[in-house]
Amino acid sequence: MANDILEGTRRFGVPHQPIPADGLVNAVEGTLAEFLAGQIAALDAVDPALGMFARTTRDLVLAGGKRLRPTFAYWGWRGMLGSREPVDSVLPALAALELMHTFALVHDDVMDGSATRRGRPTAHRLFATQHEIAGRSGDSEQFGSTSAILVGDLCLVWADQLLAQTAVTTATLFGVRACYDRMRVEAVAGQYLDVLGETQPDEWSLERALVVARHKTASYTVQRPLQFGLALAGPMRRMAPAINEAYDSYGIAVGEAFQLRDDLLGVYGDPKVTGKPASDDLRTRKPTALLMLAHRLATPAQRAELAQTPAGAVIPADGSGGPLSTAMKLPGSARDVAVREAATDEALSMEARIARQAEVIAETGAVSQVEAMIRQRVDQAVSAIQNAPIHHDARAALIDLAMTATHRPA
Amino acid sequence: MANDILEGTRRFGVPHQPIPADGLVNAVEGTLAEFLAGQIAALDAVDPALGMFARTTRDLVLAGGKRLRPTFAYWGWRGMLGSREPVDSVLPALAALELMHTFALVHDDVMDGSATRRGRPTAHRLFATQHEIAGRSGDSEQFGSTSAILVGDLCLVWADQLLAQTAVTTATLFGVRACYDRMRVEAVAGQYLDVLGETQPDEWSLERALVVARHKTASYTVQRPLQFGLALAGPMRRMAPAINEAYDSYGIAVGEAFQLRDDLLGVYGDPKVTGKPASDDLRTRKPTALLMLAHRLATPAQRAELAQTPAGAVIPADGSGGPLSTAMKLPGSARDVAVREAATDEALSMEARIARQAEVIAETGAVSQVEAMIRQRVDQAVSAIQNAPIHHDARAALIDLAMTATHRPA
Repeated sequence: MANDILEGTRRFGVPHQPIPADGLVNAVEGTLAEFLAGQIAALDAVDPALGMFARTTRDLVLAGGKRLRPTFAYWGWRGMLGSREPVDSVLPALAALELMHTFALVHDDVMDGSATRRGRPTAHRLFATQHEIAGRSGDSEQFGSTSAILVGDLCLVWADQLLAQTAVTTATLFGVRACYDRMRVEAVAGQYLDVLGETQPDEWSLERALVVARHKTASYTVQRPLQFGLALAGPMRRMAPAINEAYDSYGIAVGEAFQLRDDLLGVYGDPKVTGKPASDDLRTRKPTALLMLAHRLATPAQRAELAQTPAGAVIPADGSGGPLSTAMKLPGSARDVAVREAATDEALSMEARIARQAEVIAETGAVSQVEAMIRQRVDQAVSAIQNAPIHHDARAALIDLAMTATHRPA
Repeated sequence: MANDILEGTRRFGVPHQPIPADGLVNAVEGTLAEFLAGQIAALDAVDPALGMFARTTRDLVLAGGKRLRPTFAYWGWRGMLGSREPVDSVLPALAALELMHTFALVHDDVMDGSATRRGRPTAHRLFATQHEIAGRSGDSEQFGSTSAILVGDLCLVWADQLLAQTAVTTATLFGVRACYDRMRVEAVAGQYLDVLGETQPDEWSLERALVVARHKTASYTVQRPLQFGLALAGPMRRMAPAINEAYDSYGIAVGEAFQLRDDLLGVYGDPKVTGKPASDDLRTRKPTALLMLAHRLATPAQRAELAQTPAGAVIPADGSGGPLSTAMKLPGSARDVAVREAATDEALSMEARIARQAEVIAETGAVSQVEAMIRQRVDQAVSAIQNAPIHHDARAALIDLAMTATHRPA
């Protein structure tokens, strides 16, 4: 077995082994669907309204996504154990990461007040709509947020219940949970810093943006899922420390590169592909590493252009405070015409300002520096994983993932 | 050992053994303080803003409370093992229940928009104030809610980390977690039903109010903590099934009685003692078992009085829609005077209406029926625990707790 694990040749440079995306994703989704069916039945029996609550939650969990975290955990596990071990025993643990991810997305969407995710209404919007359709009393927005907070809470608890179904020893599960707990604390801490950064953009820096990237993205998406997979392979194995170290280096590097790509997509991504408004990060003045770097590299003239929208102010999507709000104060039909024109003007001028800002950021050299940072991190990751004593299939898949996860269109 | 456990005499009727309230509460708080200090140091090292976030969270955890859940878990554990076992090994698990409780309270306060808890500002208010003092950009309310959601999430994860420090075998911990997970799902489900009930009071019933009481309160406060304590004593002990069954009966009965007392305090409690506004449940039209029973028992005339405030509408604490909002439309200083007078009139008339509703509820006989329901449940609980094969100290303490928890002033 040890020979089998260690025999992997260095495959970087030869055609990549495709990751078993469909097979794994289908298996994870099957595990989720079966688990959720049981939970729905149990809650339905208590009260039909709870059954409906659970079904809405299930639909959010099964609404798609790249299933990146189970994929990294899977290869983290295969890297240690090789390809002969049947995956069934660990599917509940891999699927638990997706339940935890639904928790994170649903709570994030409440915090950001986002209306859609992956082209569908977000959890709090779904519940607000249920409230409106039923004609219930009270504020539908409030009911939507409340329900979504509870959906997230429920998913986090369900993740623990599903994790407990993993067919490993309780000692192994103890080690898996330790890794999982670290990941969850880092994810919450990263999210707090991310939110805080948006409220104090002037106090932010490239270094702090990278701390957010490391905690919110690298830990949560790559590093800890890989180590979670390793822990699933059982404690005290001979090569575990060396593999753990390689997963650490690879995970941080790929995770940060993943976030840096996200920063670029947040300004230059195609809205049709990303599913987000164009230049969303500029609109919300999100202090990303890209923006922090642009500020650092900018000439005084460029800095003035970057600061044209008052630093720290959110560019108002509804035009409040500009000509639109002036037009709103006119009476009657004059107002309707003026509002329409002002809104169009304002939207156009905002689009133009944002487009110009995107240009200025590129002119500072920040875009090419971020691209270089991504390349450098992918190289580090590949080098860490090439030398790791892991099974060759996993090595090839992780080298492939280092590329695809950091050079994606959405 | 088994003899020691079984020798307990029937003590009901003799002076109750005092519960070791101070000692246990101090030990739990010491465990929490030590654990939290480590977490704060770790987050501080990542970013000082995270350290501040963690310190605010610690202050919320340590802000007091009755520590009922650790107390029930403690006696659930002692009931099995007797008084000789040192408590130190299980303190992390008992303290974890308090971290989980902070999660529940903080998220509940966000959902309800409550400004104070135990006489102090709630988590979301604390963070909104931090935001305002720092003069940061963006909406301080939004930042407050977002931060509080994250405080709750962090406490839930910290609870798992603290639980993992319990000095029991991984197999024992596995059983403890199964009970803990059930409790958390029931708490979330109960909270969802509770919130839903407030939005559709006309579709609510005594039966549904009791389902909420069983899930939100009985499971979470008494039944599962007791069983959590039993699980902490280790798996597969000879008397465990009989004890588990007794804890089930006792836990549901005392937990429901606890909630029924809460319903009475929500209408008739002394605001100085409960720390909540007088008749808070009537103000928010909370469809409690008490209110549902009053509606069921009411004569047509009483029902008309109970319905005087439009069913389903929240009585507006700010007077919106009444004379106050009319006064608001007046110009200048005339408005100021009119607003002050209208607000006073409206507050007085609202106070009077609420006071009258409280009287009508009593006149229907609902209050004495709820008192009878409490007595009946306490009797059931005492009878279940009298016959349980548990250690006599635990039996005496649980009989005492059945009384004190259901006959409390706040």
